[in-house]
Amino acid sequence: MAYLNENYLKLHAGYLFPEIARRVREFCEKDPRAAERLIRCGIGDVTEPLPRAAIEAMKGAIEELGHRETFRGYGPEQGYEFLRSAIAKHDYRDRKIDIADDEIFVSDGSKCDCGFILDILGDQNKVAITDPVYPVYIETNVMAGHTGAPRKDGSYEGIVYLPCTAENNFVPEPPKEHVDLVYLCFPNNPTGAVATREQLARWIDYTRQHDALILFDAAYEAYIADDPHLDPLPGQGEEGAERQVRVESSIPHSIFEIEGARDCAIEFRSFSKIGGFTGVRCGFTVMPKTLLARTDSGKKLPLHPLWHRRWSTKANSVSYLVQRGAEALYSDEGREQCRGLIAHYMGNAKILREACERIGLRVYGGANAPYIWVKTPKGLTSWELFDRMLHEINVVVTPGSGFGAQGEGYFRISAFNSRENAEEVARRLEQLK
Amino acid sequence: MAYLNENYLKLHAGYLFPEIARRVREFCEKDPRAAERLIRCGIGDVTEPLPRAAIEAMKGAIEELGHRETFRGYGPEQGYEFLRSAIAKHDYRDRKIDIADDEIFVSDGSKCDCGFILDILGDQNKVAITDPVYPVYIETNVMAGHTGAPRKDGSYEGIVYLPCTAENNFVPEPPKEHVDLVYLCFPNNPTGAVATREQLARWIDYTRQHDALILFDAAYEAYIADDPHLDPLPGQGEEGAERQVRVESSIPHSIFEIEGARDCAIEFRSFSKIGGFTGVRCGFTVMPKTLLARTDSGKKLPLHPLWHRRWSTKANSVSYLVQRGAEALYSDEGREQCRGLIAHYMGNAKILREACERIGLRVYGGANAPYIWVKTPKGLTSWELFDRMLHEINVVVTPGSGFGAQGEGYFRISAFNSRENAEEVARRLEQLK
Repeated sequence: MAYLNENYLKLHAGYLFPEIARRVREFCEKDPRAAERLIRCGIGDVTEPLPRAAIEAMKGAIEELGHRETFRGYGPEQGYEFLRSAIAKHDYRDRKIDIADDEIFVSDGSKCDCGFILDILGDQNKVAITDPVYPVYIETNVMAGHTGAPRKDGSYEGIVYLPCTAENNFVPEPPKEHVDLVYLCFPNNPTGAVATREQLARWIDYTRQHDALILFDAAYEAYIADDPHLDPLPGQGEEGAERQVRVESSIPHSIFEIEGARDCAIEFRSFSKIGGFTGVRCGFTVMPKTLLARTDSGKKLPLHPLWHRRWSTKANSVSYLVQRGAEALYSDEGREQCRGLIAHYMGNAKILREACERIGLRVYGGANAPYIWVKTPKGLTSWELFDRMLHEINVVVTPGSGFGAQGEGYFRISAFNSRENAEEVARRLEQLK
Repeated sequence: MAYLNENYLKLHAGYLFPEIARRVREFCEKDPRAAERLIRCGIGDVTEPLPRAAIEAMKGAIEELGHRETFRGYGPEQGYEFLRSAIAKHDYRDRKIDIADDEIFVSDGSKCDCGFILDILGDQNKVAITDPVYPVYIETNVMAGHTGAPRKDGSYEGIVYLPCTAENNFVPEPPKEHVDLVYLCFPNNPTGAVATREQLARWIDYTRQHDALILFDAAYEAYIADDPHLDPLPGQGEEGAERQVRVESSIPHSIFEIEGARDCAIEFRSFSKIGGFTGVRCGFTVMPKTLLARTDSGKKLPLHPLWHRRWSTKANSVSYLVQRGAEALYSDEGREQCRGLIAHYMGNAKILREACERIGLRVYGGANAPYIWVKTPKGLTSWELFDRMLHEINVVVTPGSGFGAQGEGYFRISAFNSRENAEEVARRLEQLK
């Protein structure tokens, strides 16, 4: 009989979101009237319609495929040049970050990339992961056999956990010990924390000393409030000075804003939260050609050809339609529409953050990220608070403990919602006093 | 320094299609006028426009995403029920094959699935692969560390190769030795061979005796000439008898037509060649819930929950637009349009097959598959013939040796082309006499 991958058997049965879904379903069955009042602030899924620029671009692309003269079959495995160059220009070179078009690899979402990247890395790597954390980083390492047994608190043997607490403002310092791989995500999911230039520079220093590799998840970079994306468009400002795009902010949008990062970091990005693409599916990886990794015998080789080979052999890139849709997000019209989406969700974040503060809760995040990280009141556990909010005010949040042991005693509210719902949640929070 | 996956270093540098592209590029640079005459029958990529039913469905889906009331974000990780049920009904249950909706997993193409499936299988499995073969089966096993060193002839230590030759009509019998995993692909890429019910039944017998698992690639099943898809649509036939769909053919479309296959097989399918989706990207896996695999200690467990977990943790399913497009291929209109596409390509196959025969070449395939597998004349090697055809008649084919050692002395012509090009290639073949 064929052998199965036994590493899967180490995975904790109750993945966070299915468990939330189970409790919500049970509640709704018991109390159908309350169920109608339910507002979901759990999963970080967008609610607002796609930018019109993406819609029109995708419709045009579909029509192209309907005619022999403009039909396209298999595309380049790394993604079409039209999209890779738009990304490299707007997200990097226009911000004075040195990234070439062929260092961009288009994918069907950064969740996928976070798992795929392990394909090209060795099993010997010592892995460090923040706690709390987006569970995918951990679980893909478990599946790949990079961890030991699971522990009762939800953690795994063999992983170096980096506690993110109120004391360090949810941005961990590099560890004392040696690790080979570090996952960092800023703006952070779930805590909404951001890392300053100085904090990230200390991480780059660490990777230099330890010859380590940073896997940097920047899926939420567009939510950084001093984003040039939020500045007036050329021609819109009344004065010339206003038209200038600020390219240096205290909070980096990319790990590649930090000197030396090209030699020690890979970056993941997504169109899910910037352009409402959670259901359309598109993201990308930035893999610098200067980035080296080692063999067991100490030979140093670039990772870029391995990543290229991985894509050539295991995939046929992303739907042409979707790539045209993503490209359109970089047009003037598309960028303005994305700014509108982000302003909408960040307006929600402000409403929710202030509502939590008004009832005396300790609140983090939500200023440069669409997630608000809140301390539970009166020593309640995360799940106790989850159940109270579900039953008393019919609002679904995410229990912090689902993101790791250090998340216990917190909950996450997602700002991805309609304005009406965000305002209603704010009103209902008053009843939790 | 982080460790890389050294298995990648075992891969032969010259993947087949990049090497073809290199030689074609070199030729075109030297002789730009001949380059204008070039006709590509190399890569199996479709050329005809998308079915109108899929175009309209995808446009409608995009417009849905443009309005808050009908917007959809993350979809179910296994694929939308609307698509999974259409697949299970039309491709399986309507043909009296017992497959449930939740045994279908939608993906962005069967090339991806062929690699992903190794995620859930153990590294101890002894793997058998046909020769010649679609290179992805081999290379994904190399990347996963399931092979030893590469040999000079392009093969790898540790793999059991199953020779497909003119003597066995390119359908291998099960081996004498024990293997755990077998890759089978019928209708076959590259040889165009098909396996009969009896031949596949012998494979199922083998897997029962050896407790093995078959990975069955049915990406080209729609090209089987007695396909019910090619029968008159209900209402179109003049007489009632003509309307009946034949569900039993001598050449199975699915491994699950063979008794016992639910306990020992996984099937891969694709919309690429049936609906022109090579650039749109959609396929699926059929993972029976009855299929078991073993742990090292001999415990038997179903693979279905592992496959589900793989999709939940490592992906967010396929673009909503694309899933709506694939669903539309199952509408009456969509099925008729797909039949039209297949008839077009099979018309090309007939023209090309007959042209090869006219000049005295020994020809295989092309009757139930879009690929024609041709013996090179006068003892030429595959690459010698490739170069001759490129330079003398400006036609690109695929050298058989690129698919494995047993492919030496053959070449593959793809029928995926315009009728005009197929006819022109047929004319030019005369000059090769």
